Amino acid sequence: MAKPLAVVLASGGMDSCVSVAMAREEFDLALLHLNYGQRTESRELRSFNDLAGFYRVERSMVISLEHLVRIGGSSLTDASIAVTPADLRNAGIPSSYVPFRNANMLSIAVSWAEVLGAEAIVIGAVEEDSSGYPDCRREFYEAFNAVIKAGTKPTTSITIRTPVIGMSKEEIVRRGMALGAPFHLTWSCYKRGDVACGECDSCALRLRGFQRAGFDDPIPYLVRPAYADR
Amino acid sequence: MAKPLAVVLASGGMDSCVSVAMAREEFDLALLHLNYGQRTESRELRSFNDLAGFYRVERSMVISLEHLVRIGGSSLTDASIAVTPADLRNAGIPSSYVPFRNANMLSIAVSWAEVLGAEAIVIGAVEEDSSGYPDCRREFYEAFNAVIKAGTKPTTSITIRTPVIGMSKEEIVRRGMALGAPFHLTWSCYKRGDVACGECDSCALRLRGFQRAGFDDPIPYLVRPAYADR
Repeated sequence: MAKPLAVVLASGGMDSCVSVAMAREEFDLALLHLNYGQRTESRELRSFNDLAGFYRVERSMVISLEHLVRIGGSSLTDASIAVTPADLRNAGIPSSYVPFRNANMLSIAVSWAEVLGAEAIVIGAVEEDSSGYPDCRREFYEAFNAVIKAGTKPTTSITIRTPVIGMSKEEIVRRGMALGAPFHLTWSCYKRGDVACGECDSCALRLRGFQRAGFDDPIPYLVRPAYADR
Repeated sequence: MAKPLAVVLASGGMDSCVSVAMAREEFDLALLHLNYGQRTESRELRSFNDLAGFYRVERSMVISLEHLVRIGGSSLTDASIAVTPADLRNAGIPSSYVPFRNANMLSIAVSWAEVLGAEAIVIGAVEEDSSGYPDCRREFYEAFNAVIKAGTKPTTSITIRTPVIGMSKEEIVRRGMALGAPFHLTWSCYKRGDVACGECDSCALRLRGFQRAGFDDPIPYLVRPAYADR
């Protein structure tokens, strides 16, 4: 029997890569990549395409949300706002927060899922490591599920799955390694597209995860600080 | 003292026109128009710009959601799906339903509102006349308010206002007439961009509203059936 279909949001980073690896155990996949004008978009898109190729996914779509650049308000999309250096103990909202980004992404995913007849939307949000982003928390996804129920056809049933939301980066690395996830194809750096900087929030969280899990991160870094003891 | 700011979604139709007229009593306005590849987009955009000019609105933004065309699934955006003829007694989902369209629109409005520091988002959804669209119902907007609360910064407070949601088209006409709303600048037809067809769902609802309210609709129609007794 055919598996049910899921739309998986895939950025090209390690969390969505492992989410894809987990989702394919249960679902046929349709991969969705959203370009929202982030500095490293072209590198992330390459990772997305590599991931789709690695898993031989037949349905994939790349959609541009360039209006989020025009709206502004984030260091990820606005070159005039500095990328905050990594401070993994800081509980505030990072400068890389893109206002309401995940709702924009989920809305598109739901539109596509409703047309495809998909049952699930999978997103690799991580609550612990991204606690500064309000739209990475469980309560946000629970609230969004209620919006999907209220805002789609009565015959439509789509729920959001967040397979890695409760995991630490260390656990995500371990799970991905166990599933043979292609970490070597992924990209996480917020700052550079050629060689990962090793020092932005995203690099620091990733490197710390690999270090704590006891694996070498297979991608190259400009500098590779030790974060595991922080 | 300056009024608080609201982002108002304005399609160029009569419901959003009257919503703008109502919102400006309480708020300074930022007008947002979303192009989602509907057949009559260029005509609607003209109405939007005319409306912004009429009310001398200083902040306006036009954003393209052309991915909704690529995703498909609606007669509004997919030329291969026929526009259902008007049947005002039919409670089903019309062919013009764009999957999860209003969630896509609201997500953008929230992103912009958070950057601008706006307190409200105003949308001219009408529950009664649009009961076939799941994302025009009160419960959808209530659920979306919970998503906004969960998915924005703790210091952000934005709520959705739906000033005409409980009104009939007849009441919307009366209210708009009382406020001097520029109905002559608006466009509602789903089918044509030169002269309103008079026969699609949207034209039928509009004409019936004007007829019941006892006013002449100031825009030209190809045919102008009597709907008031249906």
